Amino acid sequence: MSSAKELGERKIIKLILNCLDQMPNMPLPFGDDASAVDLGDNKLAVINMDMLVRKTDVPKAMSHWQAARKAIIMNISDLAAKGAKPVVLLASIGVPEELTKTEIIEIGKGLNSGAREYGAYILGGDTNQASDLIISCMALGLCSKNNLLKRSGAKAGDYVAVTGAFGKTTCGLKILLDGLFAPEIQSELVDSVFMPKARVQEGLVLAQSKAVTASIDVSDGLAWSLHELSKVNNVGFSLDNLPVAPEVERFADVFGFDWVDLALYGGEEYELLVTVKPELWQKAAKAIETVGGSLTKIGVVTKEKNIALKLDEKTVRVEPRGWEHFKTE
Amino acid sequence: MSSAKELGERKIIKLILNCLDQMPNMPLPFGDDASAVDLGDNKLAVINMDMLVRKTDVPKAMSHWQAARKAIIMNISDLAAKGAKPVVLLASIGVPEELTKTEIIEIGKGLNSGAREYGAYILGGDTNQASDLIISCMALGLCSKNNLLKRSGAKAGDYVAVTGAFGKTTCGLKILLDGLFAPEIQSELVDSVFMPKARVQEGLVLAQSKAVTASIDVSDGLAWSLHELSKVNNVGFSLDNLPVAPEVERFADVFGFDWVDLALYGGEEYELLVTVKPELWQKAAKAIETVGGSLTKIGVVTKEKNIALKLDEKTVRVEPRGWEHFKTE
Repeated sequence: MSSAKELGERKIIKLILNCLDQMPNMPLPFGDDASAVDLGDNKLAVINMDMLVRKTDVPKAMSHWQAARKAIIMNISDLAAKGAKPVVLLASIGVPEELTKTEIIEIGKGLNSGAREYGAYILGGDTNQASDLIISCMALGLCSKNNLLKRSGAKAGDYVAVTGAFGKTTCGLKILLDGLFAPEIQSELVDSVFMPKARVQEGLVLAQSKAVTASIDVSDGLAWSLHELSKVNNVGFSLDNLPVAPEVERFADVFGFDWVDLALYGGEEYELLVTVKPELWQKAAKAIETVGGSLTKIGVVTKEKNIALKLDEKTVRVEPRGWEHFKTE
Repeated sequence: MSSAKELGERKIIKLILNCLDQMPNMPLPFGDDASAVDLGDNKLAVINMDMLVRKTDVPKAMSHWQAARKAIIMNISDLAAKGAKPVVLLASIGVPEELTKTEIIEIGKGLNSGAREYGAYILGGDTNQASDLIISCMALGLCSKNNLLKRSGAKAGDYVAVTGAFGKTTCGLKILLDGLFAPEIQSELVDSVFMPKARVQEGLVLAQSKAVTASIDVSDGLAWSLHELSKVNNVGFSLDNLPVAPEVERFADVFGFDWVDLALYGGEEYELLVTVKPELWQKAAKAIETVGGSLTKIGVVTKEKNIALKLDEKTVRVEPRGWEHFKTE
């Protein structure tokens, strides 16, 4: 009999989804970044739930404030990718016996900060005894039915674009977990892990622009997210650009990593990956600028299901893998 | 420095709530059974989140199907107490490595059954590696703003009433955890733990009746819930009736327990405790009958903050304690 360890997360999710009756007329299908409920009058509630487990999701050097804030950001990012405005969150906390009063207060403050940064509020939740610190949050956002961004909808010829540069969290995690030390760029890279940002404003203006045909958040890494969009839309991607932060190139140089690998096979970056109607590209890019963000074209959608990245120096096949959950013990 | 173990659940929740900015015009205050968001047009989304942890919430003899179903019922019961109709749920599951494929499928089926029993659907969720099985669920229900039932609103003179009899789960837990054996009534009592029911229809018709002034679900035990209502409303209760199942009286007889204690200081019974305008008592009682339930008057609300129960044989002071979370290891 297979155990959870052998099955892996994707198969476990599939097994569970197979047991569920499907609600008629679901605005978002199973397996999208979030779920949605039709409230009538062209209004949707977009809801999402994500659990942070200290052992697997929180590097030892991360504070309780940061961990709690991150538990909120993880959830808000999924709403951002659907074009929904985060409104309220709940937090359910599994509390190990030895957690101190100071740490509990840090968690409360981190939850509040994460929500308030994006204009949302924590409305409540509960706590339970648990053997490891667990912060399970749910977020509820609102969007008009016409503005909902789904993973499905990409067509051959659409542009592929991202809201930021990649690779920083991968480097940051390597520093935190493997003990690498990169003096000048250390704090910038580690901060990307400790203080993730969700692209809420970007998601909202992209949704309003009507330029986006498909959207996903890149919390599982760029390569993985590209493969998800490829599967859902039965398309491929021909990529010719891969935005990375200068710190990532530097880090790759110093430690002998391939910067392309660092950027493709990362995770927990919370950028948005979208496909855009070519004729509305300018509109989308300008909309993002109005909120202080940027939209970078990285390629086009293709009929062939390959995902290839052609850079000056080389062409690589983008593989369907991401950052593997780290084990600290 | 105090640890979580010394602080206890109530103080931990208080510490966290103190860190949170309060959303303006919250339809339900912090600390009510659930939270609510105003959707406009006299509509509210009522949301709730509750976490089931195997070690502390699931007796060993309970199946994975039952545990998953219970995780759903816990959440639905809180919506019921607010007069909201459950619509959708999400489930976030912490999966220990050794969980088998069969157990995972059982969990999926239990989640689905719990939701479908009450006309709701599971829309999604996520899974994570964890050291113990954790099933964290959120439920979203809808109700009209006028129909929302709160913990606050009880006035001296109102009737106090409940939707069922008490004590069965307390006996069931004593059987499961202390190994007591009560042949003929065993399965009835154990089933009350394994197969809890939420009073959704009862909550809905009570809300529509406009007869209810305050409402709480009795998941923490009748005595505890009475004290919660007492605190929130600054009132007391003069009780003269305490409905118990015949199996509970029998169990008390056989093992030498006080049946009043079994009924008062239990937990996880998911009945509703409400206060009702005396002039609308008949309306409320009839409304409940239309959905096959029953409403039993147990006393009246008093100005004095005492909570006293006067039965034929004795008068007891109802203490502010409930079933303590059991520790199986």
